[in-house]
Amino acid sequence: MGKCVNHPDRETNFVCMKHDVYMCGECVHCRDPEIYCKFRSSCPIWFMHKEEKRAEREREAEAAVRTCKVIFMPDNKSATVPDGSSLLEAAQAADVGLNASCNGKGSCGKCKLILEAGNIKTVPTSLLSEREKGKNYVLACQSTIHGDVTVKIPEETLEKKLKVAGMGKDATDRMKGLVKEISPMLLEIPLELMPPTLDDSVSDLDRLNRGLKRSGCCDVEMLSAGLGVMRELATVMRDDNWNVTAYVMIKKSSYEVLRVKPGNGEAKSLGLAVDIGTTSVVVYLTDMTDGSILAAASGHNRQAACGDDVINRIVCAEKDGVKKLGTMVLATINGLINEVLDGADADYRQIRNVVLSGNTTMIHLLLKIDPRYIRREPYIPTVSEFPILKGGRVGLKVNPVAAVFVMPGPASYVGGDIVSGMLYAGFHREEPLTLFIDVGTNGEIVLGNKDWLMTASCSAGPAFEGGGVRWGMRAEEGAIEKISVSPDTFETDYSTVGDVRPRGICGSGMIDLISEMLLTGIIDQSGKFVPDVSHPRIRSEKDETAYIVEFADKTAMDADIIFTESDIDNIIRSKGAVYAGFTVLLNQAGLDFSMVERVVITGGFGQYLDIDKAVTIGLLPDIERGKFQYLGNSSVAGAYMALLSDEFRKEATQISNSMTYIDFSSNNQFMDEFTSSLFLPHTNVDDFPSVKIRH
Amino acid sequence: MGKCVNHPDRETNFVCMKHDVYMCGECVHCRDPEIYCKFRSSCPIWFMHKEEKRAEREREAEAAVRTCKVIFMPDNKSATVPDGSSLLEAAQAADVGLNASCNGKGSCGKCKLILEAGNIKTVPTSLLSEREKGKNYVLACQSTIHGDVTVKIPEETLEKKLKVAGMGKDATDRMKGLVKEISPMLLEIPLELMPPTLDDSVSDLDRLNRGLKRSGCCDVEMLSAGLGVMRELATVMRDDNWNVTAYVMIKKSSYEVLRVKPGNGEAKSLGLAVDIGTTSVVVYLTDMTDGSILAAASGHNRQAACGDDVINRIVCAEKDGVKKLGTMVLATINGLINEVLDGADADYRQIRNVVLSGNTTMIHLLLKIDPRYIRREPYIPTVSEFPILKGGRVGLKVNPVAAVFVMPGPASYVGGDIVSGMLYAGFHREEPLTLFIDVGTNGEIVLGNKDWLMTASCSAGPAFEGGGVRWGMRAEEGAIEKISVSPDTFETDYSTVGDVRPRGICGSGMIDLISEMLLTGIIDQSGKFVPDVSHPRIRSEKDETAYIVEFADKTAMDADIIFTESDIDNIIRSKGAVYAGFTVLLNQAGLDFSMVERVVITGGFGQYLDIDKAVTIGLLPDIERGKFQYLGNSSVAGAYMALLSDEFRKEATQISNSMTYIDFSSNNQFMDEFTSSLFLPHTNVDDFPSVKIRH
Repeated sequence: MGKCVNHPDRETNFVCMKHDVYMCGECVHCRDPEIYCKFRSSCPIWFMHKEEKRAEREREAEAAVRTCKVIFMPDNKSATVPDGSSLLEAAQAADVGLNASCNGKGSCGKCKLILEAGNIKTVPTSLLSEREKGKNYVLACQSTIHGDVTVKIPEETLEKKLKVAGMGKDATDRMKGLVKEISPMLLEIPLELMPPTLDDSVSDLDRLNRGLKRSGCCDVEMLSAGLGVMRELATVMRDDNWNVTAYVMIKKSSYEVLRVKPGNGEAKSLGLAVDIGTTSVVVYLTDMTDGSILAAASGHNRQAACGDDVINRIVCAEKDGVKKLGTMVLATINGLINEVLDGADADYRQIRNVVLSGNTTMIHLLLKIDPRYIRREPYIPTVSEFPILKGGRVGLKVNPVAAVFVMPGPASYVGGDIVSGMLYAGFHREEPLTLFIDVGTNGEIVLGNKDWLMTASCSAGPAFEGGGVRWGMRAEEGAIEKISVSPDTFETDYSTVGDVRPRGICGSGMIDLISEMLLTGIIDQSGKFVPDVSHPRIRSEKDETAYIVEFADKTAMDADIIFTESDIDNIIRSKGAVYAGFTVLLNQAGLDFSMVERVVITGGFGQYLDIDKAVTIGLLPDIERGKFQYLGNSSVAGAYMALLSDEFRKEATQISNSMTYIDFSSNNQFMDEFTSSLFLPHTNVDDFPSVKIRH
Repeated sequence: MGKCVNHPDRETNFVCMKHDVYMCGECVHCRDPEIYCKFRSSCPIWFMHKEEKRAEREREAEAAVRTCKVIFMPDNKSATVPDGSSLLEAAQAADVGLNASCNGKGSCGKCKLILEAGNIKTVPTSLLSEREKGKNYVLACQSTIHGDVTVKIPEETLEKKLKVAGMGKDATDRMKGLVKEISPMLLEIPLELMPPTLDDSVSDLDRLNRGLKRSGCCDVEMLSAGLGVMRELATVMRDDNWNVTAYVMIKKSSYEVLRVKPGNGEAKSLGLAVDIGTTSVVVYLTDMTDGSILAAASGHNRQAACGDDVINRIVCAEKDGVKKLGTMVLATINGLINEVLDGADADYRQIRNVVLSGNTTMIHLLLKIDPRYIRREPYIPTVSEFPILKGGRVGLKVNPVAAVFVMPGPASYVGGDIVSGMLYAGFHREEPLTLFIDVGTNGEIVLGNKDWLMTASCSAGPAFEGGGVRWGMRAEEGAIEKISVSPDTFETDYSTVGDVRPRGICGSGMIDLISEMLLTGIIDQSGKFVPDVSHPRIRSEKDETAYIVEFADKTAMDADIIFTESDIDNIIRSKGAVYAGFTVLLNQAGLDFSMVERVVITGGFGQYLDIDKAVTIGLLPDIERGKFQYLGNSSVAGAYMALLSDEFRKEATQISNSMTYIDFSSNNQFMDEFTSSLFLPHTNVDDFPSVKIRH
C-alpha cells in the first residue's frame, strides 16, 4: 500500500509499473486534467484501470442476461430465459401451449399456473379467487421470473386436442364431381432426350427446351430457368443417360423450370390443402394423380400464445417481430405435415403442390409480411393476390420447389379463407340469394348470388371461441358443447367434448345456455338476471350475479364453472354485431331477410350449433329453418378444390375481385343496428315471431 | 515392466487396471480370438489401446494438416498453406499473379521463383539453366513446401500491367449513331401514388401495380413481384408519403418488380460493359442517361494462375471446383468495378444494367456452371443463351437487383465474345463478304455477310500470347512488340511495351521476328535454322539451335532472351491452324480468298500487328492490304451497344442463332490444310505472290 501520486489522501495497491509510483486508479474519473496522472497515455495503470472497468461492465452485462430455467409440469417441458422474463414468455420459449386470450394484458385471467418452486414477482389480480391464490395460482403473463422456477399447468389451462371441423363426409364426392381434370401448378414432365453428337451439339439447356417443346407441356418461348437449374443441369442430364424429369411451374404469364432430376421414375406426387385459422390449422394430404385424400390432421395455431384474435397477433408482431409469429404458424403447419406424412407413409419431397387458405392477417404473418397496417385506418393489407410461390421460400416442409397457391382475399378483414369457402359453397355460380357466414374468431359475412357479391366483417370478437368469457373455451376436450336448463328446477343437462368432466364452455354451449336462461326466465331480454329469482345456482360473484353451470366437485378442476352477467353481455355484443351485419348488408342491397333463400354457415363454430337456439338469442334471423345449411370447414374444402384444378384457382381470383367490401368501422347504420341488436333476441321483437319468451 | 498375460515373450508397461495383469496392448492385432485378452470387452487395456491408437491417428491427421507460411517478395504477400502444397498453390492462395501457362504441368517453365529461405522439395527440370539453378531458381509448380518458406519473384515472372485493347477512338461516336434510343433492361419508374382511404382500400401491391399501369411502363398483366419485395413494401410505400421508385426487370415474356424504394430522387443510373477474356478483362462504366463513357479499366484475369487457355481452366475447375475459378474471375471484375467507380466518383448501387461478353468457358466459370463437357466430345456447353440475370445472384459488385445480360454464344468454342464483336463490326447487316478473325488465346473465325454466317474455332493455341514459347509473354510491360533484323549484320532493332528493358517477346514481336528471320535467311521456309549461317547471335541451346534476341546484359533479367526452333515451330503451328481455318471455311462455302472483300481483325493481338509481316509468315492471306481492318476490342464494344439498346440485345441473339458452326476437330479437310500451312508462308507458295523470300 502507498499513497497515490495524484491524491496523497488515497491509499492504494496499484503501482504504475513504468513510473514506479502508486496511483489510486480512480484518477481517471477526475475531470481536471491537471490532477490525474500526467503519464496516463503511456502508463499501464491507465490501462489496468480501463481493463478493470471493462471487466466490471462485462460482469454487469452478464448479470443483465442472467438466465433462469423454468420447468413446466406435468410434461416436464422447460426453457431457459433471461431473468425478469414473464412466465408467459417462458411458456412460449418452452413451446408450452397456454391459453393466453388477451396476449399478456392480464385481462382475461386464462393463463393460470400453479407455482411449485422458485422465486417470482407477480402483479396482484382480481381474476384469481382467494381459493386459487391460497393454492399458489398465478397468472403467467403477470408473473416475472427471478431464479429457476417450477410451475404446474392446472387442468383448466392445459391445451387439449381441438375438435376441428373437417370438410364433411360428402365433401370429396361433391368436389370430385366438380373437378373435370386434375391440373397441378407444378408440371412434372418426364423426358427421354437424344444424346448429343458432333452434328447435334446444341447446349444442354437448349436440348432440354427442345424436349419440353416436343412434350407439348408449355409454350417454350415463355419458359425460363434460373442459375440454380443451370448449375446442376450438365450432371443431371448425363446421370441417367439423358432421361430426366423436369419440374415446370406455371406462373401468371410465363413458365419456369424449377428443377431437373435424373431419371423418369418419380414417386407419386402429393398435394397439400391447408386452412390456417386464427385458432386452429387443418391440413389435408392429397394424391395428385386421382385427388383422393390420404390423411388429414389439425391442431392449435401456436400463435395462440400471443392472443386470441388477429388484432392481438398484429400487436404481438409489432412488438416481437413478424418473424416470431410467422415461425410459430409455420411450426404448426410443418408439425401437421409430419403427421399426415406419417399417416400416409410418404416423404415431404413428394408434396409438390400446396394451397394455403387463411384470413389476411394469418397469410401476412405466415409469409412474414408485416401486417401492421391491417389494424390501422384505412386498414390496408400489403398483398391481397399472390403469385405462385415456392415451398422452400415460404418455409413449408414440402419439396423446396413445390408450387404454393395462396387464396386471394378481397380486404384486410375478409380474407382468402372466405373466398375459399365460397369456392366450395358455390352460390356465386347460382341464382338464389344466399347469406354466407363464417363465425370464428371474427365474423365474416357474404351476401349475393351469381350476379353480385357483397361482403363485410363485423368484429364479433372472440367470445364464441371463449375469449372474454370467464369459463369460455374453444371446442376442446372438456368443453360443454350442448346444455339445457330445466324450466322447473333450473338444473342442467349437458354434454362435453370428449365426454369428460367439464373444464369450461364453448360457443355452441354458451348459445344454448343463454337461450335456456332466457326461456326459463333466469335472465331477461337485456341479458340481466331477473332480480326475484332465487336458486342455489344463482349467486353473487364479486360485483355481479352469476349462474353456476356446474359445481366444483363435478368439474375437472377444483372450481365452480360459472356464467356471469358480463359473460352474457359479451356474447350479446358478439351476436349483435353479426346480426347487425346481416341487416346492413341486406339494407345496402335494398333487400330484407324474407328474400334470403339460403343461409350457409361455415367454420368450426357452426358444427354443434343449435339453429333454434341461435335464433332465440338473435344471432341468426328467424326464417324458415330449412333454409339453413351447415358446410363444415369450407375454407379447407375450397383449398382442396384449388389444389386440384387450375379452373378453381382462377375462379377464386375472380370471386375475390368481384366482391364489394363494405366497411362497418365508420358506418353509422351499422352502429344503429348493432345497438338495436343488444337485446334478446332483438329490440324489434316482431322480427322473431317464433321466439316465445316466458315473462 | 512385466510379461504380457497373452504373450509371455513380450515385456510391456501396460497394466490392465481392472484385472491387474500386464498386457502388451498389441494383442488386439492378433487374429485368433483365443490368443488375445479374454477380458477384452470389459478391460480398460483394450480401451487404453484404442485411445492410444486414436490419439496416434489424430497426431497423424494433425501433421497432415500442418501448415506453412510462404512469403512472396518483393511485395511481401504471404499465405499459410498445408505442408506439401506447391509454391504455385501458395501463390494462388496469396493472390500473387504468377505466369503459369501450363497450369502446373511443369512444361512451360514460366513460373520461376527464387528460393530465399526455407525448405522445399523440387522435381528436377530441364527448363531451368545451370546458371538459374545456381541462383536458387525453382519452378513454383514443381516445388512442394515443407516448413515456412520465403521466395522472391524474379523480374521475368512478375506480372506487369497488361496493354489491353480498348474500343478504339471512333468507337463511341460510331455506336452513338447506331443507338436510336437508350433502353435499359431494368426500368426505373418514379411513382407518386394516392394515399389509401376507406373508400380506396386496395392492397399496397395493387396500389403499386395501379401506379405502374398508369405510368405505361409495362403490361401489368405480365408483372409479378417476389416475397422479398412484398415484405418491404408496406414500409417503403409509407416512408416518403407514397412516393416511390420501382425497379422493374424486363424478362423474356414477363416483367418482375425487383425492388421498390421510397422517394423519387434516385442517383444517376450507370451501366457496365464487361469483356471477359481468358487472359484479360476489360470494364467500361457508362452513364445510362446519355450513353457516355465515364471510365474504363482493364486487368489480368486472375484465373491465369490456373493456366493460359480455356482447356487448362476447365481442367483446373474439375480438380479444384468451379467455385474457385468463378471466384477468381469475379474478383477480377469486381476489382475493376472498384477502379471505374473510383474514376467516376460513383457508388456501386448506381450500376443497374450490366452486359457480360466472354467466351463460352469464361461465361460458364463466371456463373459457376460446370464447363467440363465443353472439352469432351461432342463439346457441349450447358447454356448458350441466358435469361436476364440479377447482379447479386451473379456475385457482381453492382446493385443486387441490376439486370445482367449475357452475350449468347453459338457453340462451345465460339462464344458470346465473338457474337458481341460481330454486333460491333456489323458486317452481318451488309452485303460484302467478310472474314472476321479474333486471335487471342484461341482463334475464332467468322465468314459471311447479311445473308449467311459460318463460324469455326481453330485451336491456334496460346503461342501468340506467349504460351509454349520459352521467352514468349503477353503484351505486358517489357514485351518486345516490334522487331526488325538487319539483313546484313543480323543485329536487331526493337521496341518494347512501356519502353523499358526487354523481359520477353509478345505475339506481334514473334510474328515480326519470324518474318525477319525468314527474309534475312536465318531460317528456311520450314522454320529451321539454315545450317551454314554462323553468327554470334545464333547458338546451340541444349538440343536445338536458337537466335539470341537480346543478350542478358541488356535485358531486365540476368538472362539472354532467345528464340528457339521449337518456339518457331509453335508459332508456325498456331498460324497454320488459323490459315487452314480460313481456307476450309471458304471452301465449305464454295469460295476462295479472292472473293473476300474485307478482313476484320479484332482482339488484343491485332493491335500491334504488322499486316505485311503476318502475310509473310502465312498467318493472313496475301490479298490487297486495304481490305484489312483492325477493330480494337470489339467484344467490349458490342457489350456496350447491347447495354444501351434492347434492339442490339435482340440482334445479338439473332446473330448467335443464325451462325452455322463448323467443327474442325474431326474435319479431315482441316487436317490437310493445316499440314499444308506448316510452312513459311505456305506449302503452296503461289498463294503468296507478294512474299519474296531470299534463298
